[in-house]
Amino acid sequence: MIKVGIIGGTGYTGVELLRLLSTHPQAQLKVITSRSEAGRAVADLFPNLRGHTELAYVEPDPAYFDECDLVFFATPNGVAMKQVPELLQRGIRIIDLAADFRIKDQPTWEHWYGMSHACPEQLESAVYGLPELHREAIRSASLVANPGCYPTAVLLGFLPLIENGLVDIDHLIADAKSGVSGAGRTANVGTLMGEVGESFKAYAIPGHRHQPEISQTLKQLADKPVQFTFVPHLVPMIRGIEATLYARLKVTETDLQALYESRYADEPFVDVLQAGSHPETRSVRGSNHCRIAIHRPLDGEVVVVSSVIDNLVKGAAGQAVQNMNLMFGLAENCGLEQVALLP
Amino acid sequence: MIKVGIIGGTGYTGVELLRLLSTHPQAQLKVITSRSEAGRAVADLFPNLRGHTELAYVEPDPAYFDECDLVFFATPNGVAMKQVPELLQRGIRIIDLAADFRIKDQPTWEHWYGMSHACPEQLESAVYGLPELHREAIRSASLVANPGCYPTAVLLGFLPLIENGLVDIDHLIADAKSGVSGAGRTANVGTLMGEVGESFKAYAIPGHRHQPEISQTLKQLADKPVQFTFVPHLVPMIRGIEATLYARLKVTETDLQALYESRYADEPFVDVLQAGSHPETRSVRGSNHCRIAIHRPLDGEVVVVSSVIDNLVKGAAGQAVQNMNLMFGLAENCGLEQVALLP
Amino acid sequence: MIKVGIIGGTGYTGVELLRLLSTHPQAQLKVITSRSEAGRAVADLFPNLRGHTELAYVEPDPAYFDECDLVFFATPNGVAMKQVPELLQRGIRIIDLAADFRIKDQPTWEHWYGMSHACPEQLESAVYGLPELHREAIRSASLVANPGCYPTAVLLGFLPLIENGLVDIDHLIADAKSGVSGAGRTANVGTLMGEVGESFKAYAIPGHRHQPEISQTLKQLADKPVQFTFVPHLVPMIRGIEATLYARLKVTETDLQALYESRYADEPFVDVLQAGSHPETRSVRGSNHCRIAIHRPLDGEVVVVSSVIDNLVKGAAGQAVQNMNLMFGLAENCGLEQVALLP
Amino acid sequence: MIKVGIIGGTGYTGVELLRLLSTHPQAQLKVITSRSEAGRAVADLFPNLRGHTELAYVEPDPAYFDECDLVFFATPNGVAMKQVPELLQRGIRIIDLAADFRIKDQPTWEHWYGMSHACPEQLESAVYGLPELHREAIRSASLVANPGCYPTAVLLGFLPLIENGLVDIDHLIADAKSGVSGAGRTANVGTLMGEVGESFKAYAIPGHRHQPEISQTLKQLADKPVQFTFVPHLVPMIRGIEATLYARLKVTETDLQALYESRYADEPFVDVLQAGSHPETRSVRGSNHCRIAIHRPLDGEVVVVSSVIDNLVKGAAGQAVQNMNLMFGLAENCGLEQVALLP
Repeated sequence: MIKVGIIGGTGYTGVELLRLLSTHPQAQLKVITSRSEAGRAVADLFPNLRGHTELAYVEPDPAYFDECDLVFFATPNGVAMKQVPELLQRGIRIIDLAADFRIKDQPTWEHWYGMSHACPEQLESAVYGLPELHREAIRSASLVANPGCYPTAVLLGFLPLIENGLVDIDHLIADAKSGVSGAGRTANVGTLMGEVGESFKAYAIPGHRHQPEISQTLKQLADKPVQFTFVPHLVPMIRGIEATLYARLKVTETDLQALYESRYADEPFVDVLQAGSHPETRSVRGSNHCRIAIHRPLDGEVVVVSSVIDNLVKGAAGQAVQNMNLMFGLAENCGLEQVALLP
Repeated sequence: MIKVGIIGGTGYTGVELLRLLSTHPQAQLKVITSRSEAGRAVADLFPNLRGHTELAYVEPDPAYFDECDLVFFATPNGVAMKQVPELLQRGIRIIDLAADFRIKDQPTWEHWYGMSHACPEQLESAVYGLPELHREAIRSASLVANPGCYPTAVLLGFLPLIENGLVDIDHLIADAKSGVSGAGRTANVGTLMGEVGESFKAYAIPGHRHQPEISQTLKQLADKPVQFTFVPHLVPMIRGIEATLYARLKVTETDLQALYESRYADEPFVDVLQAGSHPETRSVRGSNHCRIAIHRPLDGEVVVVSSVIDNLVKGAAGQAVQNMNLMFGLAENCGLEQVALLP
Repeated sequence: MIKVGIIGGTGYTGVELLRLLSTHPQAQLKVITSRSEAGRAVADLFPNLRGHTELAYVEPDPAYFDECDLVFFATPNGVAMKQVPELLQRGIRIIDLAADFRIKDQPTWEHWYGMSHACPEQLESAVYGLPELHREAIRSASLVANPGCYPTAVLLGFLPLIENGLVDIDHLIADAKSGVSGAGRTANVGTLMGEVGESFKAYAIPGHRHQPEISQTLKQLADKPVQFTFVPHLVPMIRGIEATLYARLKVTETDLQALYESRYADEPFVDVLQAGSHPETRSVRGSNHCRIAIHRPLDGEVVVVSSVIDNLVKGAAGQAVQNMNLMFGLAENCGLEQVALLP
Repeated sequence: MIKVGIIGGTGYTGVELLRLLSTHPQAQLKVITSRSEAGRAVADLFPNLRGHTELAYVEPDPAYFDECDLVFFATPNGVAMKQVPELLQRGIRIIDLAADFRIKDQPTWEHWYGMSHACPEQLESAVYGLPELHREAIRSASLVANPGCYPTAVLLGFLPLIENGLVDIDHLIADAKSGVSGAGRTANVGTLMGEVGESFKAYAIPGHRHQPEISQTLKQLADKPVQFTFVPHLVPMIRGIEATLYARLKVTETDLQALYESRYADEPFVDVLQAGSHPETRSVRGSNHCRIAIHRPLDGEVVVVSSVIDNLVKGAAGQAVQNMNLMFGLAENCGLEQVALLP
């Protein structure tokens, strides 16, 4: 039984982590901290957990975690980097669901996150927790940087094309759309239902923090810099990300359907749909799957990939549990076999 | 391992039954029939089931069910009553998710459902599958009539008041609201998103089929006729029912909170919230729970109960699985421990 | 041309007032104040107004209003009562869209609004701005208290029954449902789309501020105290209120349909639907109409009325403009002939 | 006063046309036909029109239109082409809201619409009704082909770039998103709220009918063939289209913001937002405006344009009325000054 703790956990990635851990057969949640909610029962804040956990939030204190094998950070960006060193010293392994350790280049991170990094010495050793790419490194990692939601959907969609050098890496485009839970559970006029319901918009077109995160991995895959345009959009729904990817084929003979199917044949959570399909975000609502379809519109030289995930599961808490399973030698899908809720 | 079959199962109660059975540790789905979809893989129609079932729909044929211990009818009203006798004769136990066997009085049923009943001889022996009321009878039943969605939410909310004779049974009101999945998966202008999205309305105010179903049980509980007004409403969301119940207290000293808590203390799926709470449908989305709160506005003589369920789970497929568990001596919550999806 | 000013107007009732006034043929908006947005163009905050107004918010200052014939308060409760005396002194007429002058009894107001009233001397003279009830008084009023959204829908539904003494006033119930715009445009976790989308709940069951506001008028109509239960609910949509009203008929011979049709025959904004109808909130989205249907379920002694309005129009800004039209001798529907947006 | 008729008009473009015409000061709706609804009052089918029109649907019969100056076809594709010749012969001018006359090349039209064209002789003379491009031709046209919803949003976004030869026309991409009203008001499982609510997906990636319609105009503008990729998506909302356009700049010195502002300076319905803006579909809900923003992500060589319209207004009925105004010498914005409904 893995003993786990959660730091933070009053937001949407937190409650989703609680949902998954509360029914996980091999993990036991020992402690969850929150400054704002200390003393309050978790199930008071999130009534869906009534009957599933007796836990209450406690004030943050590293000592609480001595009994833990693993700690999840479900905190805002910039919190984990301050506490990671002490926890590692205490021999506790860490999965950070925030962005503190996702970008290897310190100046790049500091530019996009607008603060100086408190723990640059761990940037190199931190493992980027995308199992489909770094499975072996994750198994032995002490510190896992859980990928962002958009990067997960976009990278899984691009992987086979870039790995095999099939497309022009100077013209990669990802047009991504996310439900509002991606914006978090903080009081904010911009995400009131009165503001975002029944409306659709692009945002952050000039530049979004997930662009450098995605570019970093695309560059590793291509082994040279790429030109990548990323535009996120806000969808009037709660959960789900769909990413539509555009690239120009350098060779048009390849059977892309077969390529994707073989690349992901052994992946428990990547599902390549039949040729001609269009994945719906509802087909992964509440599940850890990424479903993908590949097309060549009008049989032209442009390849279009549609990739869907639940931003709170494969895009956050579910992938974190998948990483935990790998780090502790469990079956990769242990506690992650929920069927998506449809309708 | 219980061997089960499903007749019908191309609608929303069907896909929900498939979701629950596909992860049920003690049940094995052997066959599912559909005239319209015969030959098609279940996971083609419902992509959330990809990776969870290899089953395909087959043409209806009683012979298919010989290997089954139990058959679920997820068919439109009027189908089960024609096939039940043969299946019972083959020694197969049955749970009907439709309305064919819910109402004991044949003329009443025929009035509300607009057809003559093909199997009146089973009306008496059929057990109304509300475990909180008929648990023992369900255990030994051959034919269970799974309650309607509205009746489940309304009856669980009224139960303690009526059983204890605390309210004036001549003035019972249930103002109920349901998500659109309750209207089913049939092509119909009236439930297009363009028609029901971003709008709210009452419907069937002159009379709704669930009124006599609810009245029948209220009458049993009160041991005399009741006057019960029922008004359903359509909510622009997919899942969930909230029923707001109004009754006049005959005695105002009773501690209603304590009464409800003790009545449901041993019920695995009825959750009485703390005094002062207001249940949200999202707190039961995808779960088999019914959550209830009791109030006395301005400390007057009117008691108001708010009761929420997921119409497709406790209101249909989940309650059917709960009944199956009882019929086959399994733990009542076996395969039903999913945590509600929030947000 | 009526010269008008708006105090506040950065919220939803404010932007709706701006929408209606910007196309009103007889009113000219001269000034709009806001502490938080002073200096900002109105159309920057609300892009739907681009091309319709050049106005910018200015710091609050009574002097600004000297050129105005009328000032609307679109402020939080408790603001208007502090500024009304000075404006009246300057000879400016006032419509308060907040609650400061809706309740005649000072202690009752102070109990429900949790503050002491700064301007009790105006409580008596202020006219409750429901044209269908107080049309003549509104024409000559200096200070109009614009009714609340729920009270408008509930009172228009109950009016004919109470005026004619047809129902038992000791058992009046209003089960009301509102879209989230009713909760305003303030940053608040409770109205994030992630919290209220795809979910339904009752709230404020123990007591809501609109209960005494409605009771006050019901009492006037019945000429004696009434027992009135009010339960509001939150609907996952942006605009619209539906109120389902329950009362017990004392006499069952009356032709209720004819009664309602004649009561509202000359009302420009109250539409009695054909017998057997069920009004949808979308049928009044963006319009100043209230649509009503009357039913007697199963021909019993309970009468059920369903009443719908757009909470931001007939429930707030539209009714305020209707009151302005009356106060200044214009056609009552001047500038209010928009057709509801359906779908 | 222009006398107009509508053929069809039981769908969403029909009801929107009725909304706009019922308050148009210079147009009078004389007759509306429908096979399915003949004899029924328009306001029965669409309650938002109660009090705005007394008209009832009549059986289709060309004779009805002799008193009309103009007839709108709000029919499915393939209907107008059969009736246009007779109406033209009777001297009646026509605006077809369907696709029959949008594509000049008969084989292309027949390939995409899967039928042979019944009236190819009018393909050349029909004017493509995009006022921003063909204003003068529209004024004198007898037959106007009203543009599709996606083409309107995409073409207005691309126009200034292509007209000025600023981008590489071999790599044009439009990632477009539409609310469900674009799918019409026909009974169809695929657009039930239970199917499309709370979900997002791409569709028709292999090829969509609006691709050749858009390509035809892009080719005219560029005066040579273009390579254009078009991917539509379905958004869980009712109204609104957002198109995100991607192109590669050939010259990067141009001030794109100034270019767009000057190109559309005199256009009554095209609004270029300030630099750095992101248009929301709600900012045009119910209005005839198209709002546009231009960006260069990370100051690179890719230009990204975001363009929003209401698919039922500027994308259909509103643009048809704008064309009518031009055809009959009225002010172009006559009857089209509605402010968008926000929130």
